Amino acid sequence: MNLLIQNGTILTMHNRKVIPQGAIAIEGKTIVDVGKAQKLERTYGTGYEKIDAKGKVVIPGLINTHQHAAMSLLRGYADDLPLQEWLEKWIWPIEKHMTAHDIYVGALLTAIESVMGGTTTVNTMYHYTPEENEAKAFADAGLRGIIGHVCFSWRKNEDKKALKDLAKSWHNKADGLIRVSVDPHAPYSVDPEHMKELKVIREELNNKYGSEEAPIISHIHVAETDDELEKIRKTFNIQLKDGVMAYLDSLGVLDERLIAAHCVALTDKDMEIMKKKNVKVSHNPISNLKLASGISPVPKMLREGITVSLGTDSPCSNNTADMFEIMKTTAILHKGVNKNPTVMPAEKVLEMATIEGAKALSWENEIGSIEVGKKADLSIISLKKPHLCPVYTEASHLVYAAKASDVETVIINGRVVMENRKLTMLNTEKVMDVVEKTKNNLLSKLNANVK
Amino acid sequence: MNLLIQNGTILTMHNRKVIPQGAIAIEGKTIVDVGKAQKLERTYGTGYEKIDAKGKVVIPGLINTHQHAAMSLLRGYADDLPLQEWLEKWIWPIEKHMTAHDIYVGALLTAIESVMGGTTTVNTMYHYTPEENEAKAFADAGLRGIIGHVCFSWRKNEDKKALKDLAKSWHNKADGLIRVSVDPHAPYSVDPEHMKELKVIREELNNKYGSEEAPIISHIHVAETDDELEKIRKTFNIQLKDGVMAYLDSLGVLDERLIAAHCVALTDKDMEIMKKKNVKVSHNPISNLKLASGISPVPKMLREGITVSLGTDSPCSNNTADMFEIMKTTAILHKGVNKNPTVMPAEKVLEMATIEGAKALSWENEIGSIEVGKKADLSIISLKKPHLCPVYTEASHLVYAAKASDVETVIINGRVVMENRKLTMLNTEKVMDVVEKTKNNLLSKLNANVK
Repeated sequence: MNLLIQNGTILTMHNRKVIPQGAIAIEGKTIVDVGKAQKLERTYGTGYEKIDAKGKVVIPGLINTHQHAAMSLLRGYADDLPLQEWLEKWIWPIEKHMTAHDIYVGALLTAIESVMGGTTTVNTMYHYTPEENEAKAFADAGLRGIIGHVCFSWRKNEDKKALKDLAKSWHNKADGLIRVSVDPHAPYSVDPEHMKELKVIREELNNKYGSEEAPIISHIHVAETDDELEKIRKTFNIQLKDGVMAYLDSLGVLDERLIAAHCVALTDKDMEIMKKKNVKVSHNPISNLKLASGISPVPKMLREGITVSLGTDSPCSNNTADMFEIMKTTAILHKGVNKNPTVMPAEKVLEMATIEGAKALSWENEIGSIEVGKKADLSIISLKKPHLCPVYTEASHLVYAAKASDVETVIINGRVVMENRKLTMLNTEKVMDVVEKTKNNLLSKLNANVK
Repeated sequence: MNLLIQNGTILTMHNRKVIPQGAIAIEGKTIVDVGKAQKLERTYGTGYEKIDAKGKVVIPGLINTHQHAAMSLLRGYADDLPLQEWLEKWIWPIEKHMTAHDIYVGALLTAIESVMGGTTTVNTMYHYTPEENEAKAFADAGLRGIIGHVCFSWRKNEDKKALKDLAKSWHNKADGLIRVSVDPHAPYSVDPEHMKELKVIREELNNKYGSEEAPIISHIHVAETDDELEKIRKTFNIQLKDGVMAYLDSLGVLDERLIAAHCVALTDKDMEIMKKKNVKVSHNPISNLKLASGISPVPKMLREGITVSLGTDSPCSNNTADMFEIMKTTAILHKGVNKNPTVMPAEKVLEMATIEGAKALSWENEIGSIEVGKKADLSIISLKKPHLCPVYTEASHLVYAAKASDVETVIINGRVVMENRKLTMLNTEKVMDVVEKTKNNLLSKLNANVK
């Protein structure tokens, strides 16, 4: 299908270029023209379905670079608890009862919530299950994503099998919507030898299924809490003098295809290494605050020239998949803790949620900005709302005032996946009913197990 | 009109009592019964208009204890700037051109946004203008509020006149919806003698227009930034050794009818005094972060037994009037900075946004909880949304996952002011059009003035 989006204010996120009364022409999956509406209307007439964006803002779809999509099933199941108690007494015991179908259902719910909030790409780390999985859920929702399988030292063979299966079945599949990643859980749960091995496996899988244009990447939790070095020392009996990134660098596993989530407890040396190795960051401010992990030194990383993108983390440590909340929290948090109102201006934060997100996922050749030749991943946001009135600057409103619910229409890979807040690919009501039943099943199984 | 709200989960916020499948009977302005739906349906049959709240949550309307409602006209006008530059080069120059009608229009927009986000009471501080004003705007929207006139040393006579006029015209008016307050701007902008005088004036006005049940209160900014003591020293040549509250206490102006917004830079001694004098606090986390003022020691104030409520601050330092954002930010921020995930649990934060807000405004005899005899100020929130699915605990969802846009129906003083997201008292579209024109007028006047 060919589309012409007309009369909107277009925030291209390519060198921060803004086009008032702009238009975007889309043929198939691809953006073929971007410019003033008046000009494009003359060129793209019949054969183009029109979307009127008058009084609206068009942005590249938001890119959420850290998720555990299936965990929406546990949204609000346990909050306000110490981290270890939360994990050991609440999250892990109930997660054990999740079936492949449950994982699919949970990811489907997150996919719906993501699309409804203007997010068009999600980087998710979870347990891969061949029968049903997050990849299928995203494909069914028409959502772009990188699906990772999380790896631990205690299940190496199982993980290797899962990684191969995942890469073979899903990398660069579903019309290019789905890519995959190799996800060592964290430096304290994957031993040093296995950490190296997982990088070798990633490159083997890249040789077989990946390409320069569509690489298989790595996705890992790093330096989420202050005690991570201590946990590594304790678990693997390794004496470390520098930071966690310095440790990973000593293993030779850092490169531009690695995205590290959190990066809260970093040393200056860590940041130096990250810049040198072009390691990408996913900043998750809401999860870091809610779990009391601390505050990532984002302004400093940005000054160092490190690529920092934004993520929500799982729907049970946030508890939403809302990138608008993340943008606002990012913009205000670092101002407050650094006592400097000029850090993290709205335009920079918007970049982090779009083009920097694309770079962080090694996907900037196709997504993250509105440019000719890129895939058509777009969100159209209505400004005709009391809380977005009056309009001085669109970027300010998007970061400081807009809500997920202001997103009206979402296009992914040239396909309209949400129109006037109705999903075109899925029955939202039905998915919510199934999720509620799945939750009841999980609680029953948990209670039966406890008895 | 008599109303029966049926089948909802009722969070009464009275001793945190939750009633599943509950009902609320309302006669005129007042709640006459609260209990299980099955029981109330038998008692309140004909003559009661029914509102079905199945699958929904009913809470006391949210109470926003710090606003400058008219400033919605400047939402997004200037962001990401140093505080003094923001005020002196941007906000104050354009504010000079605001007419009484502009103030009315801005307050009307904030009233609409507030109601649409489930807020039923707003405490606002601005310049009172007799012709048109924030009080009229709130009354026209059916919103409950306390309208303050802000006082400075440099316009004492003008302020005294305004205070008298405001109290006479508006205290306990509009069917009891509107109360008024005496608002010294801040300890550095009101000299010590005038600070004392303003308390005397408040009590004179109370004797004339107020009562024990409906008092005229004081509303002031205190300790918003670290340099406040230094500003007081410089401006009034006063040598101070303790904190700002200790200074105010030395003037004899602290009592249980004073609500202090911000309270970021407090000493231990300050908090001791606040507890002793029962001074109330409005915590404004988003504004404090965005303006880089710092982070208020809220967990400590709560441990001291101080009443802490929540506020959004003005729509140009936030940039919304959304109390759901404030609740989530409050719940996560203090966990993160204190590295303790158990502080500020969801239930406590909900109290701060409801019953503690009522106490902070000396209005808890009428609002803040769902109890027989209180005024019917209620918000009904739909849980049938992907981002609120599944449901384990309602309080968690309200604080961590719900958005202003999930509020469906709002009742204030027994009157349905929003039904299925449509305002009943005002034409939202028309107000937005007027606001956009008002903004353009302001910019024209500003540009003409600059030339």
